[in-house]
Amino acid sequence: MLIIKIGGSIQKDEKDFNLIIQKIEKYLENTDKAIIVTSALKGVTNQLLYATENREKAVEIVSDVYDKHIKLLSKIAEGPSFEFAFREISKLADELFKIAWSIRVLDEVTPRVKDYILSFGERMSTLVLNAVLNSSRINSEAYPEPPIITDENFGDAKVIEKLSLQESSKILEKKSKVIIVPGFIGKTQTNKYTTLGRGGSDYTATILGKLLDIKEVRLITEVPGIMTADPRNFPNATTIKRLSLEEAIELSQMGAKRLHPRTFEPLLNSNVNVIIEGLYDPGYTIVRGDCDNDKGIKGIAVLDNLKLVTAESTDIVGKIGSAARVMNEAKNSGVNIISISQPASETTIQLIVNSQDSEKLSERLMTLPEIESVTTEDVEAVNVVGCGLKYKEIFKEVMKEISNYEILSISRGLNNVSATFIVKKEEGDKLAKDLHEVVLKWTN
Amino acid sequence: MLIIKIGGSIQKDEKDFNLIIQKIEKYLENTDKAIIVTSALKGVTNQLLYATENREKAVEIVSDVYDKHIKLLSKIAEGPSFEFAFREISKLADELFKIAWSIRVLDEVTPRVKDYILSFGERMSTLVLNAVLNSSRINSEAYPEPPIITDENFGDAKVIEKLSLQESSKILEKKSKVIIVPGFIGKTQTNKYTTLGRGGSDYTATILGKLLDIKEVRLITEVPGIMTADPRNFPNATTIKRLSLEEAIELSQMGAKRLHPRTFEPLLNSNVNVIIEGLYDPGYTIVRGDCDNDKGIKGIAVLDNLKLVTAESTDIVGKIGSAARVMNEAKNSGVNIISISQPASETTIQLIVNSQDSEKLSERLMTLPEIESVTTEDVEAVNVVGCGLKYKEIFKEVMKEISNYEILSISRGLNNVSATFIVKKEEGDKLAKDLHEVVLKWTN
Amino acid sequence: MLIIKIGGSIQKDEKDFNLIIQKIEKYLENTDKAIIVTSALKGVTNQLLYATENREKAVEIVSDVYDKHIKLLSKIAEGPSFEFAFREISKLADELFKIAWSIRVLDEVTPRVKDYILSFGERMSTLVLNAVLNSSRINSEAYPEPPIITDENFGDAKVIEKLSLQESSKILEKKSKVIIVPGFIGKTQTNKYTTLGRGGSDYTATILGKLLDIKEVRLITEVPGIMTADPRNFPNATTIKRLSLEEAIELSQMGAKRLHPRTFEPLLNSNVNVIIEGLYDPGYTIVRGDCDNDKGIKGIAVLDNLKLVTAESTDIVGKIGSAARVMNEAKNSGVNIISISQPASETTIQLIVNSQDSEKLSERLMTLPEIESVTTEDVEAVNVVGCGLKYKEIFKEVMKEISNYEILSISRGLNNVSATFIVKKEEGDKLAKDLHEVVLKWTN
Amino acid sequence: MLIIKIGGSIQKDEKDFNLIIQKIEKYLENTDKAIIVTSALKGVTNQLLYATENREKAVEIVSDVYDKHIKLLSKIAEGPSFEFAFREISKLADELFKIAWSIRVLDEVTPRVKDYILSFGERMSTLVLNAVLNSSRINSEAYPEPPIITDENFGDAKVIEKLSLQESSKILEKKSKVIIVPGFIGKTQTNKYTTLGRGGSDYTATILGKLLDIKEVRLITEVPGIMTADPRNFPNATTIKRLSLEEAIELSQMGAKRLHPRTFEPLLNSNVNVIIEGLYDPGYTIVRGDCDNDKGIKGIAVLDNLKLVTAESTDIVGKIGSAARVMNEAKNSGVNIISISQPASETTIQLIVNSQDSEKLSERLMTLPEIESVTTEDVEAVNVVGCGLKYKEIFKEVMKEISNYEILSISRGLNNVSATFIVKKEEGDKLAKDLHEVVLKWTN
Repeated sequence: MLIIKIGGSIQKDEKDFNLIIQKIEKYLENTDKAIIVTSALKGVTNQLLYATENREKAVEIVSDVYDKHIKLLSKIAEGPSFEFAFREISKLADELFKIAWSIRVLDEVTPRVKDYILSFGERMSTLVLNAVLNSSRINSEAYPEPPIITDENFGDAKVIEKLSLQESSKILEKKSKVIIVPGFIGKTQTNKYTTLGRGGSDYTATILGKLLDIKEVRLITEVPGIMTADPRNFPNATTIKRLSLEEAIELSQMGAKRLHPRTFEPLLNSNVNVIIEGLYDPGYTIVRGDCDNDKGIKGIAVLDNLKLVTAESTDIVGKIGSAARVMNEAKNSGVNIISISQPASETTIQLIVNSQDSEKLSERLMTLPEIESVTTEDVEAVNVVGCGLKYKEIFKEVMKEISNYEILSISRGLNNVSATFIVKKEEGDKLAKDLHEVVLKWTN
Repeated sequence: MLIIKIGGSIQKDEKDFNLIIQKIEKYLENTDKAIIVTSALKGVTNQLLYATENREKAVEIVSDVYDKHIKLLSKIAEGPSFEFAFREISKLADELFKIAWSIRVLDEVTPRVKDYILSFGERMSTLVLNAVLNSSRINSEAYPEPPIITDENFGDAKVIEKLSLQESSKILEKKSKVIIVPGFIGKTQTNKYTTLGRGGSDYTATILGKLLDIKEVRLITEVPGIMTADPRNFPNATTIKRLSLEEAIELSQMGAKRLHPRTFEPLLNSNVNVIIEGLYDPGYTIVRGDCDNDKGIKGIAVLDNLKLVTAESTDIVGKIGSAARVMNEAKNSGVNIISISQPASETTIQLIVNSQDSEKLSERLMTLPEIESVTTEDVEAVNVVGCGLKYKEIFKEVMKEISNYEILSISRGLNNVSATFIVKKEEGDKLAKDLHEVVLKWTN
Repeated sequence: MLIIKIGGSIQKDEKDFNLIIQKIEKYLENTDKAIIVTSALKGVTNQLLYATENREKAVEIVSDVYDKHIKLLSKIAEGPSFEFAFREISKLADELFKIAWSIRVLDEVTPRVKDYILSFGERMSTLVLNAVLNSSRINSEAYPEPPIITDENFGDAKVIEKLSLQESSKILEKKSKVIIVPGFIGKTQTNKYTTLGRGGSDYTATILGKLLDIKEVRLITEVPGIMTADPRNFPNATTIKRLSLEEAIELSQMGAKRLHPRTFEPLLNSNVNVIIEGLYDPGYTIVRGDCDNDKGIKGIAVLDNLKLVTAESTDIVGKIGSAARVMNEAKNSGVNIISISQPASETTIQLIVNSQDSEKLSERLMTLPEIESVTTEDVEAVNVVGCGLKYKEIFKEVMKEISNYEILSISRGLNNVSATFIVKKEEGDKLAKDLHEVVLKWTN
Repeated sequence: MLIIKIGGSIQKDEKDFNLIIQKIEKYLENTDKAIIVTSALKGVTNQLLYATENREKAVEIVSDVYDKHIKLLSKIAEGPSFEFAFREISKLADELFKIAWSIRVLDEVTPRVKDYILSFGERMSTLVLNAVLNSSRINSEAYPEPPIITDENFGDAKVIEKLSLQESSKILEKKSKVIIVPGFIGKTQTNKYTTLGRGGSDYTATILGKLLDIKEVRLITEVPGIMTADPRNFPNATTIKRLSLEEAIELSQMGAKRLHPRTFEPLLNSNVNVIIEGLYDPGYTIVRGDCDNDKGIKGIAVLDNLKLVTAESTDIVGKIGSAARVMNEAKNSGVNIISISQPASETTIQLIVNSQDSEKLSERLMTLPEIESVTTEDVEAVNVVGCGLKYKEIFKEVMKEISNYEILSISRGLNNVSATFIVKKEEGDKLAKDLHEVVLKWTN
């Protein structure tokens, strides 16, 4: 058995679906059954979001969304499969039209209704995908209701594992060879639709893997796996063959492919392996196990457009609570701290934040009585990831490279499998390129 | 005019005072007037502290303290100088006896009474020093009351500059060539004695320099200036000739000679220069001005007996407020955070604390719902200080050296004039020695 | 000029409207212009409320509401008046249908939408009333939008007087002799509908009186004025001719006719007089001025179904804050305290609450550490109202009467014009009857 | 066995002690053993308090206190009894001198030291009383250490019953016929002295009664029992023979003899009876049992110098939480609410407070947004107490009397055995006199 997650960005046209069919047919040669977790068609979630914010156009937008599904359907499905999906999508569209019309009338959207509206993207795409598969004589079945039970924290709902286990087990009772379920959405115990937040579809796939004890979870995306660096800036970037769990979490956090770290949570203490592969090009990355015996350096990631905010005072030295007060100011100003650094002399606290947050943060910090001055500087963060970094001899290779740079701070990530180097903006690109060379050399 | 601070550790016996007299006589060749800020005699402050904590022995201890002063006095002073000081010290001792007796009776010491008791150390030493100088025919005068006005924050009182200016100006009205004032202690607007906290005598000297606009402040101590490293562990350590203000703050924070960073605060926006010199050996360090055109690397300092506490969770990624919650736990458990480090992937928060605090902190962090695991590791912090670190080519020298080590984190201090390297405990000593070689090479 | 408020309970059928026309025609004999504030037709507000709570029936209910208006309209209006009102009500019904349909679809009603829905009751009734008057050749005009600007506290919005003055002045620009405006509803500065809370239509009438400086405000209701007691229980009750403002507030608070006390607020510091009169029977009560020279006792009111909750403890004696803690518990348990009583020995605190609240309150009070015991008892509150009670000789008459009863507590109301007597349940009726006799004797 | 508490106001001179001896001799005719709880000599507690507040005179005051004890002792004791007590009191005085001298030196008194100083009053008086008894050949023994263990809430310490039972049982091990223990003071588990707050000696007596299961507790005071009214204002006041527990609590709260209500707490659920009797005149009041079959009205009490503060607003009607907010303002302004009253119309809240608090309270209440006006009025509270008030026919007698007065509020106390009448200041005296006549008639 197998779980396959089909991303939204690769569900845009006839060609995409032909490739998807080929892929699935190939999988089915080696498995008795597959659960497909699908995202909404490309662009649909954004359109629905736009409708909730521009309620006077909601009906129009919903109409476009319906058209998009039907047009695509008419191209890629035929016969009874087409008819069935057409009918079902139209039913959902009817429901969605009513809601669109209602929010226009009331000119108001509550978090519950917002999640309700977003749920249609995945609920419709399961039907489209099913029609496509059926038209290709694949024995499949759509299961358009969420197999995941969550709390009522609309917009960022938490999975209730015990109840979800019960609910998702119903998928296995289905007779078809392929069962298509919606990613990203859940429902509460009183049957209200919820959404799982950023990266929700990937998370649906892995949590189902864990709940149903299915070892293989394939995330199909635009790119053939996780790469050693962002290929747009690093032409010689290559796909990474295998990542440990820690590496995957670290790299997905900062890399070109932004998977939510929750995606990998279900892999802890379970047999689940995740394979990230491309639809268009061959190549894949497998995420499996931990660092044991792995000496590779896997990839780098760059965060630019950052500011280093430095708060200085002789009065904070040895003061229990100074750092807490600084962090609280950051929190109260709604600023996410990307990286923190405080030297042992305790004379400064350095916070790295997104550029747009730096002014707000500086102003707040200046209000603290113990802070004497606050300065800012443009910086970049270069992150290198790999189990090999745990080994002194390999880490030295990295250190040798960076010894040519003026490093503002170094910090180490999860289990020491990553190291973040903060450098002045003008040095960032060169450092990244140098480190990528190290990666390419040490990728196993 | 000149301010001379005489530390307590160099006021222990006849020999010390002979050397002090020689030093002062030499200064007086070149100045019309000197203000001497004195600490309590060696050991006295600790004895008085001990008395507040062992109240049943308080009277006995006070008796010892009195004896110590009188014995020393009888050896180093004579004639009317001796008699006057004897009489005045006995008066103070009377007062102190009463207090000692009172705290024994009541078996209780409030913060106000504690500061009151500590004040006698400096009030008596001004009288001793004055008698010594008079016996050597130096035209001097004791001014045993605190020249500094503070708030009522007993134990760590803050100077109220405006009122202290007024109060300390009275020193200048004295006719004698040398005026001896007590360091470390202040008084409130209602004439209660206060203490200025750790390093208070140095601070008294520099704040008086600022208030009275006296350019030269000499801190006389055991060691001939600030050294490139702790000479007990680094036999080739040498005295640093000049430090910028930033360097002095950074180095004093962690070095063999532990000056409170507040010592240097009065140098900001003022003409005050500080000269740190030894009583026994020639050699001195001058602290003056900023880093401009200074490319030296001045010294290193090592903090051992540290623990790196790492809190991990995928749930803290991108969570505004996670770092604040972690810091608040640290604060609420009364733990001083020596160094902080968080990588850009935001998967961990690393705190460096004194070893004895690590267990307490770990336990508190484990109570946070978002923290999945907390681990600890023995580490050392090596700090290298020097204006030269602001220059890329010089910083590279340092980086080259550290590229042989597994650095857990780097962070930069005040104006980038220092860098803290956190390494595993077993690598600390070697790294420190290597970096000290760099220092010796680059000391200007 | 004149303001006439037509209550909802007297807008139920042809007969009612005939009487209303007669009344208005009569008024118009003596005034150049009248503003009519109208409530929703009888039962309509409740139907709309029911729709918000039973959303699956909302469309059906709205359909009934529409029918009710149209049927009534067809009976009491004719010709172009009918046609115009029919068209306008149908337009409103269209809007309301959409909303009903929307809340059914979304299965959710926010406070804003609830007020929006309720607003239709009054907006429609202005059109009905206008049609009726026009059909009777009265020169009238409907002004179905709220003339009152409020804050955004949906469900219990506060009038913003300055903005409402501006808005309501537009009514006066209308040329017709009679202008019909909706009571109970307001709108925010961004044109969202709000409601004014319980008794809102009366309040609309009096606040318009104040804002537009119209001296005479007539509240037309089922009963011919405010009576000396509830006529259902006191057959010899009679209409009170005149009430002072204080008496009106006190009596309306507890009497058979439950006017919200806010109704009378606009009478303070203004020339507005309020006349409460019946539609069916002659008789009226005028509310005007204060108690000066008024020695009457005007009426009684009875609250039964109450419980006296007594909390006892010797530990609360003289404890600053005990009463506050008791009240806070009441507040936090959501219980409204009808009457409070604490003797000067401070050994108990007695709270009178509605019977259904007593258990909840008792439980909460028992959780307070300082409370030793909590007991409850069935009681009735008999309230006697009259300016005469300010006079000792008249108050004595009342006291003589109550001296036959076991009074649990007495408390005095606004400016001493009322007195509340708490007695055991079994004594309540007799005391009320006895006091009513005093009232009848002293009504002036 | 028997507990006898000797108040401080009846320990002033030779005559007093002669009377005390006679009294005790008489008791001893009928009992095998007696525990005497003694207060400090007349005036001593106030002198010691004064010393803590005027520390520069503390030694002098303590000297006076010592003199007072010794002079009295020399008059009333002789032989070895005198010598022993002289020696012991001198020892205590030595200790006290030291403390007095210490607080003068340190010019500071903590709550712990204050209780420590106050403890000497009772510790010395036990020695005086013992000497007197011994001189009269009564077989007695002083037990000058506190037999009560308390928490560390200095100044108002709470008894820890379990530990006190253990500690006080040691009294019973003493062989003498009479054991004299200090009232008012306790000690913590770490042997620090504490005081029990107002009325502490009475409370020591009754709590010992409860702990040691001694049925009879006699409180010997200046006045022969509790009287029907304050004899200074009511010349025909008489001693009340018996009071139920509830009556005693209510009456002691407000009466001429101000016993703390805690005094009677140990009587709940125990066999302890309290007899309050005079030293100078015959007569006593027994406090025993509850109201069963008691139809008496026992006494009245008057609180003058009160203000009725009335807060009015139509906006507080039916507002859950209004009363709580009003009480919280009172609490935050540090004002003790003596009586509360709110009529059922909820238009006002009336608070009765001491005159000196009324302005402060009014100002705070005016800051509440929902309060429209606050007025104040001079009032008196007349409290009538008696089990008979629970009976309708007897309560009517009271009601008949008050029907001649303009009662502002009535409230009922503990178990309905008291009623507080609030009247205007000018009516207070006459009402009190009238009610006292009712009392005299119904005293059983």
